[in-house]
Amino acid sequence: MDSPKVVALGGGHGLFASLSALRRVTDHLTAVVTVADDGGSSGRLRRELGVLPPGDLRMALAALCGDDDWGSTWSEVVQHRFLSQGELHGHAVGNLLIVALWELLDDPVAGLDWMGRLLRAEGRVLPMASVPLDIVAEVRGADPAAPEEITHVRGQVACAKTPGKVLSVSLVPEDPPACPEVLRAVEEADWVIFGPGSWFTSVLPHLKVPELADALLRTRARRLVALNLAPQPGETDDFSPQTHLEVLRAHAPELKIDVVLADRNLVDEPDVLEKAVRTLGGRLALADVAAGDGSPRHDPARLAQAFAQIFVSGHVTRRDSARLP
Amino acid sequence: MDSPKVVALGGGHGLFASLSALRRVTDHLTAVVTVADDGGSSGRLRRELGVLPPGDLRMALAALCGDDDWGSTWSEVVQHRFLSQGELHGHAVGNLLIVALWELLDDPVAGLDWMGRLLRAEGRVLPMASVPLDIVAEVRGADPAAPEEITHVRGQVACAKTPGKVLSVSLVPEDPPACPEVLRAVEEADWVIFGPGSWFTSVLPHLKVPELADALLRTRARRLVALNLAPQPGETDDFSPQTHLEVLRAHAPELKIDVVLADRNLVDEPDVLEKAVRTLGGRLALADVAAGDGSPRHDPARLAQAFAQIFVSGHVTRRDSARLP
Repeated sequence: MDSPKVVALGGGHGLFASLSALRRVTDHLTAVVTVADDGGSSGRLRRELGVLPPGDLRMALAALCGDDDWGSTWSEVVQHRFLSQGELHGHAVGNLLIVALWELLDDPVAGLDWMGRLLRAEGRVLPMASVPLDIVAEVRGADPAAPEEITHVRGQVACAKTPGKVLSVSLVPEDPPACPEVLRAVEEADWVIFGPGSWFTSVLPHLKVPELADALLRTRARRLVALNLAPQPGETDDFSPQTHLEVLRAHAPELKIDVVLADRNLVDEPDVLEKAVRTLGGRLALADVAAGDGSPRHDPARLAQAFAQIFVSGHVTRRDSARLP
Repeated sequence: MDSPKVVALGGGHGLFASLSALRRVTDHLTAVVTVADDGGSSGRLRRELGVLPPGDLRMALAALCGDDDWGSTWSEVVQHRFLSQGELHGHAVGNLLIVALWELLDDPVAGLDWMGRLLRAEGRVLPMASVPLDIVAEVRGADPAAPEEITHVRGQVACAKTPGKVLSVSLVPEDPPACPEVLRAVEEADWVIFGPGSWFTSVLPHLKVPELADALLRTRARRLVALNLAPQPGETDDFSPQTHLEVLRAHAPELKIDVVLADRNLVDEPDVLEKAVRTLGGRLALADVAAGDGSPRHDPARLAQAFAQIFVSGHVTRRDSARLP
């Protein structure tokens, strides 16, 4: 049986985790990555050179590096950050390399494909839009002196750090161009994976790119949500798993979800979660996916096993299963 | 017949030219590169991160890139410089990548070998010493107000720009450690190539690293000097070809040279030059090696042809020819 065509959406450490698992499960993997970061090395490069923020793309590429000597060395190299008292301090080397390829080739996708070839990446990495984005969060109580006031906070760093409660996110510009390669990958996918990751700044933004959201609604792929193992400090402090799903639904009311994957030992109220999953049209899959060391980290091998089981257990085919053998 | 083992010594654009030619002539090519640059991107990296100046090494690696799509793309990428109003302005991407590998692997040679593998370089690039060096030039008339006074100028940039006449160069530290890999390559070589390049700052410094100078004296390889096509503004303004050889002899009085290669059309007094070559123990080889467009550039294909002819015309074997078939 051919391995399924999988598209993983996200950014940052969450996407790193899903890709580290998915590359073990399929030979047809595409990552679609947020380009709204405005902090750190990415933010500086974006401001200095007017490019897409490369950091989340770099991290996705590193996750797709193989386990051999080549993959592990180049993965470390692209993730390496300079430490100094000077101007390079904090820059990740892979960010600089990606930006150089963009400047030379004048095409974000071509640059990322060259990086993929260099790293012998086990999958393709694409940006969720072809222009840099800003995330704008609707926040209640951003100013602690006015805890009920609803205001807007702009920028990924500001959204992640706001002391208020994030209610929803939108993008500036509102209708950024999606990459044709992304739309094609979503259209042709057997599975589309949302999460894990920072819910408001890495998982939901994809649904606010209109062309991409439309493709995600129209695709005949199965849709899977991989829940986080713990609420994220700041962004989703007091969010239960079902709150995550409610927020997802609020951002894309028509989106049907087929499977929600959560860690068996970290769900306090499986019945409540199962009910929330059914509201989205799907089923709940519980599995051992946490690292097991007490940290809220996914274990790549366990997560891979969970994905593999879901992919084969009656859900491997697309909705139009008649089209497939 | 096996292709000869060739070691090319130099730095900067001169070494780029010799390597671009030599990689077409032999499968056993090692570049031994100056590490005394203190200007530009290299100088900044050296000061900020305490590493070897990577620029000349990067340029040598770029020269060894193949002519296929992979080689030409990565050669452009590593040579690419950021242009901005900010902190990255002027940095060459390949310099940053080399430095990252050094920081991760903590071994200059291992880092350069990984770069070579990435680029699929057609040869090996090694530093002439394993610590950063400063060039000190003995200069007459560095101060135009005292045209006969002899002073010392420190740093590659200062040496290249001094308005005075450079008489000789030395290194700080005086006895830097050479890399064992360099000493082995020189020992095992069939040919050692000096130049072309900035005479005082790229060609002669190798002779001031005592361990390397000793290996160059002891090797049974043939020694070839490839002369520059024109005097270099500043460093060797009014130098004739024979002056270049005299200066070389002054820096390494015991070094016997087997062949001096010069462009047939750019030598004004072949008889005088031939006499100077004989003083060094060698013969003069005249060939068409200039680009032919009026610029003082070597044409890689012509230079390759000249090297190939010299290598086969009775000089292909090492001094201990009895050891070879």
